[in-house]
Amino acid sequence: MIHFNISDILDADKFFRRNLINSLAGYKPAMLIGTKSNQGQENLAIFSQVFHIGATPPLLGVLFRPDSVERHTLQNIRENKHFTLNQTALDFTDKAHQTSARYATDQSEFEATGLTPEYKSGLFSPFVKESPLQIYCELAEEIALPINGTILVIGAIKDIFITEEMLTNDGFIDPSRGKVVAAVGLDAYYKPELITRYAYAKPDKKPETMN
Amino acid sequence: MIHFNISDILDADKFFRRNLINSLAGYKPAMLIGTKSNQGQENLAIFSQVFHIGATPPLLGVLFRPDSVERHTLQNIRENKHFTLNQTALDFTDKAHQTSARYATDQSEFEATGLTPEYKSGLFSPFVKESPLQIYCELAEEIALPINGTILVIGAIKDIFITEEMLTNDGFIDPSRGKVVAAVGLDAYYKPELITRYAYAKPDKKPETMN
Repeated sequence: MIHFNISDILDADKFFRRNLINSLAGYKPAMLIGTKSNQGQENLAIFSQVFHIGATPPLLGVLFRPDSVERHTLQNIRENKHFTLNQTALDFTDKAHQTSARYATDQSEFEATGLTPEYKSGLFSPFVKESPLQIYCELAEEIALPINGTILVIGAIKDIFITEEMLTNDGFIDPSRGKVVAAVGLDAYYKPELITRYAYAKPDKKPETMN
Repeated sequence: MIHFNISDILDADKFFRRNLINSLAGYKPAMLIGTKSNQGQENLAIFSQVFHIGATPPLLGVLFRPDSVERHTLQNIRENKHFTLNQTALDFTDKAHQTSARYATDQSEFEATGLTPEYKSGLFSPFVKESPLQIYCELAEEIALPINGTILVIGAIKDIFITEEMLTNDGFIDPSRGKVVAAVGLDAYYKPELITRYAYAKPDKKPETMN
């Protein structure tokens, strides 16, 4: 096996280090965050640092680096407390990735990439019409991590919209049925295939598949 | 599309809600955390809430629910400040899932599941020998999220061990080359296949693949 110790890591070329460290945690969602400013300016940006925080109440977390292109998204969330999360599917992965370009403040990434803003009755922020799994969130908490200034935004889930084919009888959502892609590192996208679901593990039983 | 509003979610059957909310964020890593108590008791547990926090210095975050089977892992990390992160590969996914069973305090999940503890020179905590991507971390920060008591453990990356086939020239690690699996929800595992890597996105350029 190849071994990098902390000196090797810190001495490495900056781009090499960034790719290496960003891909260590492996698979993550390619989630499009839709927001709108109070002046009506739409924003769409891809985020892969999105994760489950709790089921009751239902909460999701998103990590922001304040010095990046993500700043319009964070500004809008702070301004009106709402945002949408939209899973990326295989047929618009290129457009989803393109939202990471540094567009001007007055340019909508929806228009620039060709993704379609979708407004739902009574909800302020735009969804991505092409997405098979759309979530509406309200800002619940914002925490700055003392260690490096990364900002953890916790969203309270208010609405979930999902294609029928992805939802199974016990509430589990199979993203592969909606051709949802996974992201790795800063620029790689994957098409996952379901291997199996396992039954709840117990000490005195062997692993059992649920298929 | 099927629509769940917050009342539908809160009124749903507990297991349905747990499955639904846990699968919203989609793909995530199936990471085995290896620890050892100061008395020498080994512990191994699967975690899917593991994510990138920063590249310089290199940091990873792990979310813990304090009331769960994960408590031995957290106790050990607090006790001696070290832990390993090991990506799960296809040929031991069943054993990795089985580590989530509530084994007795004096039972090692390595022994119970048949995974092999591996000790590396100078490093306290056990790795999973079968894993193609192993990371050694030191506890850097622990933050309790006020909203629901979830604990965010931030680990400073000290060592990375990786099979040669997974590492690409620019530092990107392709987990699919090591047959690393993705997790979704509480019990589902996926085999991802690389679609493409995209070049750094710029406003005046169309998305370009790097293959």
